[in-house]
Amino acid sequence: MPGPLTLGQIASQLGGRVAGDTGVLIRQVGSLQAAGEGQIGFLANPKYRSQLAATRASAVVLGAEAESLTELPRIVADNPYAYFARVSQLFNPVVLQPAGAHPAASIAASARLGARVSVGAGCVIGEGVQVGDDSCLYPGVVVYPGCRIGARAIIHSGVVIGADGFGIAADGGRWVKIPQIGSVLIGDDVEIGANCCIDRGALEDTVLEDGVKLDNQIQIGHNCRIGAHTAMAGCSGVAGSARIGRHCSIGAGARILGHLEICDHVRVSANTVISHSIREAGTYTGMYPADGHDAWLRNTAQVRHLDALARRVRELEKKFEATGGGNG
Amino acid sequence: MPGPLTLGQIASQLGGRVAGDTGVLIRQVGSLQAAGEGQIGFLANPKYRSQLAATRASAVVLGAEAESLTELPRIVADNPYAYFARVSQLFNPVVLQPAGAHPAASIAASARLGARVSVGAGCVIGEGVQVGDDSCLYPGVVVYPGCRIGARAIIHSGVVIGADGFGIAADGGRWVKIPQIGSVLIGDDVEIGANCCIDRGALEDTVLEDGVKLDNQIQIGHNCRIGAHTAMAGCSGVAGSARIGRHCSIGAGARILGHLEICDHVRVSANTVISHSIREAGTYTGMYPADGHDAWLRNTAQVRHLDALARRVRELEKKFEATGGGNG
Amino acid sequence: MPGPLTLGQIASQLGGRVAGDTGVLIRQVGSLQAAGEGQIGFLANPKYRSQLAATRASAVVLGAEAESLTELPRIVADNPYAYFARVSQLFNPVVLQPAGAHPAASIAASARLGARVSVGAGCVIGEGVQVGDDSCLYPGVVVYPGCRIGARAIIHSGVVIGADGFGIAADGGRWVKIPQIGSVLIGDDVEIGANCCIDRGALEDTVLEDGVKLDNQIQIGHNCRIGAHTAMAGCSGVAGSARIGRHCSIGAGARILGHLEICDHVRVSANTVISHSIREAGTYTGMYPADGHDAWLRNTAQVRHLDALARRVRELEKKFEATGGGNG
Repeated sequence: MPGPLTLGQIASQLGGRVAGDTGVLIRQVGSLQAAGEGQIGFLANPKYRSQLAATRASAVVLGAEAESLTELPRIVADNPYAYFARVSQLFNPVVLQPAGAHPAASIAASARLGARVSVGAGCVIGEGVQVGDDSCLYPGVVVYPGCRIGARAIIHSGVVIGADGFGIAADGGRWVKIPQIGSVLIGDDVEIGANCCIDRGALEDTVLEDGVKLDNQIQIGHNCRIGAHTAMAGCSGVAGSARIGRHCSIGAGARILGHLEICDHVRVSANTVISHSIREAGTYTGMYPADGHDAWLRNTAQVRHLDALARRVRELEKKFEATGGGNG
Repeated sequence: MPGPLTLGQIASQLGGRVAGDTGVLIRQVGSLQAAGEGQIGFLANPKYRSQLAATRASAVVLGAEAESLTELPRIVADNPYAYFARVSQLFNPVVLQPAGAHPAASIAASARLGARVSVGAGCVIGEGVQVGDDSCLYPGVVVYPGCRIGARAIIHSGVVIGADGFGIAADGGRWVKIPQIGSVLIGDDVEIGANCCIDRGALEDTVLEDGVKLDNQIQIGHNCRIGAHTAMAGCSGVAGSARIGRHCSIGAGARILGHLEICDHVRVSANTVISHSIREAGTYTGMYPADGHDAWLRNTAQVRHLDALARRVRELEKKFEATGGGNG
Repeated sequence: MPGPLTLGQIASQLGGRVAGDTGVLIRQVGSLQAAGEGQIGFLANPKYRSQLAATRASAVVLGAEAESLTELPRIVADNPYAYFARVSQLFNPVVLQPAGAHPAASIAASARLGARVSVGAGCVIGEGVQVGDDSCLYPGVVVYPGCRIGARAIIHSGVVIGADGFGIAADGGRWVKIPQIGSVLIGDDVEIGANCCIDRGALEDTVLEDGVKLDNQIQIGHNCRIGAHTAMAGCSGVAGSARIGRHCSIGAGARILGHLEICDHVRVSANTVISHSIREAGTYTGMYPADGHDAWLRNTAQVRHLDALARRVRELEKKFEATGGGNG
């Protein structure tokens, strides 16, 4: 772990403006609640202001609007959360695993690994795979033959890249397998969380563009294209042949059905199912509300009669109009 | 990869009727959009007819109803999609991995592997496991002791077969583990996608019948039985002791609750929760609709008052009847 | 497998009262439906009483209220299901894997494994990891550096413990990674099902308290705390920084959104999304009902007009009141 830095040294590396003692020594980051001597915290969300008053951190990163809320040595930054991320990167190497291939990894002779690539124990890299410089594959990642991964990738354990997409054709009550002859193409600066699956394409490639960030247990079906800098939270999934734009956010557990297009800058809320293409940026939600079980039972029983209910209301409206509707 | 075939040679192997030049040489399949010289495409869905006009493929597979839409050399088939799958199999071996056990696989001495079985690096095959002829276990598959897998299975990376089912009994605020002494029994011609889990039975076996096809990240609980030729899309799940019939289709993200029965030929739509047994073939759906976030907020607030709303409508109907209801 | 025991020997080890022949020899447990000579079944749920009449088991475990329903040799227990679990443990060792580290496991030199720990083939145990006595890691488990696991853990194949939480900060259309410098702390007597992911904390630890039981494919986000003796069914998930109380049950496919608190003794039904903190014990549900596809289409179309429907009903009520509302 890198040595301590003064607040002034941090600001000279990362920018921002120091208020208070520039010489205070910082060794590590921490939360406002748990940080102590030698640690720097951050305030990015006004709802945690009370934690700022109580913190025992040695310094704090915050925005100009919160600068006067504390006497602590502080760095004032335009985007305190991103700034804090960079401070943390100074003290904590992002990747825990050394460069090179672990002896217990299985790497095909024809695979091409870039400079400083790290491959953990138990990884299996198939024939013809390419991995760009400075990428890290944590233990137990499987990359099927022919897939390409860009530079600075972080691929967590249990990820499977390039397994066959789910291509089957019905034929007289049996299924005929459709060979999946596309591949997977992953851009630069992509992170993929533990136990995700990125299927190879049926005929062309499945593509994750630069800067895509995937949390754990995400399923990306064959032929999908995930646009640059789109982030997907845990357990979300994209069915085959869907195209998601750039700079989108897909919430945890959300699901994008197949053969859809989602334009750039769309936010899909957690546990929302997208069943039609989205052509306008914005936030889309579709979560059934939880309730006490008995209340749920009562209300949910009506969901299956909603159409009838709407017709009954229309009927009442019509009848009411026919009587003169209160104007008579 | 196998060498090129003329259109006539393809039809003589697979059936169908050639229209146009039977001698055109085909080397690979492709989509109508991307195929070029030496490739054969297909048209199975009328909504892609415009692609047929524009394609640069050398030949195409289509149905009789579309035969006259193109001048290209073509094969007319009853089921163009299944036919195309078979053409693709001619040019692309379905399994990318050679027969035999990779040296980095761990195979118990008492395991019995059939002829031409392929076991990838990092696979772990427990004591007493049986695997039928021509099956392929991609890298990193774990099969717990005693499980049996039929012939021609394709098991993708990260699959876990035979882990303990979730059997716990509450006892004074603690949980007592119920040993899972059943096994897993998998029929012939089954494909299991990456990172799926098939739990062993609590007392008897968990069963996947012949021809079952599972996409990725599917969870099959203990004691389940999945009927022959049923297909399940990614991230779906079946809770313990459920029985699903033959020739069913379970959509992506769908979930079948425990101790249910679903009869043959049922289609469950994506993201649908089945909480009662289904005794009649057909398509079942239960997806909460997504909407713009603000509209969702407004509408979803009413879901928790649906029962009250229905009662208010009934009240209005009664009152209206009491006044003579527009007939007066 | 341990040898046979008489019914009397079982009761002398586990308690309970024997009715009928105490000398009957039991070799194994079974379900009432499938058990035969030498097997003991159980009746815990009155709806299976008809199976009791028909069973060919040699003996049965049941509650006092059912004691007179059979002539079979029987053990009467307060909690027949938990009692049966303990009987099964007598005949079936809970863990199928021998103690010690498989040669195909990769264990960092600085890892500390307790007495009788079992580590399967393909497991990867990172630097500084601690594992308590009598724990079992099935093949293919990955534990990232610095994580701690208590005694008597059962960790099934494909589990990933300590991968980075999903911490990214938006900065000018790009994502900046926030180093995940917390760890994972797992108490005693925890079981974790196949292919689960437990992310390491962003700044402090992710914690699973004693006696937590997780089914397969569960995602636990960074900084979460799961209270003691809470059980979660398959494919459920907890987003980052959520805190779940003790003795909770989380149903299959349920999802707890981030930064929430759920108090002790809460039951969340299957496929329910919890989007607000829960401060009162009880059962909470939010499952959209499945229906025949056409009925669903009709009814679901109204969900997006519920707010308007409620306003129309209110309008009718007002108008009706204005006319004298049936009292005139």
